[in-house]
Amino acid sequence: MREALADIEGGALVLVACSGGADSLALAAALAFVAPRAGLKAGLVTVDHQLQPGSAERARTVADLAARELKLTPAEVLTVTVGTEGGPEAAAREARYAALAEAADRLQAATVLLGHTRDDQAETVLLGLARGSGVRSLSGMAATTGRYRRPLLDLPRATTVAACQAQRLTPWDDPHNEDPRYTRVRVRRKILPTLEEELGPGVAEALARTARMAREDADALDEWAETAYRNCALSDIDGAVKLAVTDVEKLPDAVRRRVLRRAAIAAGAPSGALSATHVLAVDRLVTRWHGQKAVDLPGGLSAVRRYGTLILAISPIP
Amino acid sequence: MREALADIEGGALVLVACSGGADSLALAAALAFVAPRAGLKAGLVTVDHQLQPGSAERARTVADLAARELKLTPAEVLTVTVGTEGGPEAAAREARYAALAEAADRLQAATVLLGHTRDDQAETVLLGLARGSGVRSLSGMAATTGRYRRPLLDLPRATTVAACQAQRLTPWDDPHNEDPRYTRVRVRRKILPTLEEELGPGVAEALARTARMAREDADALDEWAETAYRNCALSDIDGAVKLAVTDVEKLPDAVRRRVLRRAAIAAGAPSGALSATHVLAVDRLVTRWHGQKAVDLPGGLSAVRRYGTLILAISPIP
Repeated sequence: MREALADIEGGALVLVACSGGADSLALAAALAFVAPRAGLKAGLVTVDHQLQPGSAERARTVADLAARELKLTPAEVLTVTVGTEGGPEAAAREARYAALAEAADRLQAATVLLGHTRDDQAETVLLGLARGSGVRSLSGMAATTGRYRRPLLDLPRATTVAACQAQRLTPWDDPHNEDPRYTRVRVRRKILPTLEEELGPGVAEALARTARMAREDADALDEWAETAYRNCALSDIDGAVKLAVTDVEKLPDAVRRRVLRRAAIAAGAPSGALSATHVLAVDRLVTRWHGQKAVDLPGGLSAVRRYGTLILAISPIP
Repeated sequence: MREALADIEGGALVLVACSGGADSLALAAALAFVAPRAGLKAGLVTVDHQLQPGSAERARTVADLAARELKLTPAEVLTVTVGTEGGPEAAAREARYAALAEAADRLQAATVLLGHTRDDQAETVLLGLARGSGVRSLSGMAATTGRYRRPLLDLPRATTVAACQAQRLTPWDDPHNEDPRYTRVRVRRKILPTLEEELGPGVAEALARTARMAREDADALDEWAETAYRNCALSDIDGAVKLAVTDVEKLPDAVRRRVLRRAAIAAGAPSGALSATHVLAVDRLVTRWHGQKAVDLPGGLSAVRRYGTLILAISPIP
């Protein structure tokens, strides 16, 4: 916690997002201990998702405990309404982060701390692995993302449980964390235990290590691809992107495909709808050219190759 | 199979390595069908590991079936003695590949085909994931490695079983493939089924896709690191490597750590013994410099920083 807050200016407010579970309760207690010694103000927010009966009272209990036992000020309940878009987990997450961002702005917090542990990281890597969409999806959560920090990302969940016990703090076990309708719960309850049983302990640690390395790799490759894109792009005005095939084709596969994805997005393709299969089809215009027709892409886009130039634009390309 | 052999010169011999299992038996049958039509000669080798009673007869049966039913010539049994180094799986693999290489040389084969399927690839990715040693360990097996080719790497195992049935070929189920003492067997029998049950079908496909992308990424980053190493290395004579810190420190994390690993190996560190932890310790001489002492590395090596130069050499560095 001390390391995680080392660069925060004295007198600033640090918020902890706390569900009342062991992870974020231990995090709140650590903040309550460290903040005054580091010359920082410490507050807590807890989100009432209004998805379970009694959730308002539950959130109130967390805020009261924070104010009374941990002396965190402010200690606020943020009440949100969860939509349905993208499934229950995504909708709850979206509502939660919107409320956290609003509170951080309103309270002028320097940062918001999140209680994700190494076990959460391992689960995230497995979920990314199951999608099979490359190193970026294996890179899990960052220790710092914008205003959010995750000081517990290298610690096992068991440590937060022990920390709560040692401090006589009673965590609340969210029944959602046991509901097998959630993919993440199945990963936690079935897949990780099976992996540990069959491959030995240390799997969560190995997955977290994989995440860290995958993130560095993905960042480096994105940097390379960004530079390469700027070198290859003849123009990207009016949503039409033109690339010189001779420049693109000499790039390594991993970089060339990132450049083509980048080009499609610059030309207007919605990134969420642009699959690896789309990118590979455009790639064949570069690497397996035999006079193919235009390749259709999401967002009404086409990619064509003409006289050594790859053109990505809204179709039909004149 | 046609695609996998498209670049082989007419008249050349293609060998298939066949255990008698469904995967390599289907591969042998596919080779027997395609080779004559492509103007190629087709032969088979089967390895007797001498690890089970009756293994010699078993291997003989596979070779006889190949000669009689599939008209593969030659159809040879390669008898090997398996050592113990690195555990039973590694020792058997080592002995097998040595025998395959010897046979390929002796018979002047253009290539040796291996029966690994998409399911084997998925297992390999999970084993690499459990090691937690980065994208290279997630990249599984290559479709082509030196003289070896894996034409079935994108096909599910079920397809090879169906192919054997359709051609009335009876595969032999190696009891080793069911022996839970082998990590790979536990991955196949316990972990992959749990993943498919909890995350839905398509996990093996997603893992194989991850492998393909991870391999491309690892290749591109290795290429970058190799160029960067050559740019940063002031000298690497007599096993002493000197790098300019100002050049090294501006590289992205993923590239810088690869450059440092490359430097340690160039200075004489045994690559197998050089862990990510070692590389990170050297990295701190670059990125978190506060006058640290020398960092000890495997192979009696040290890394020190002096006046803006990182020196890796046999210790003590004068």
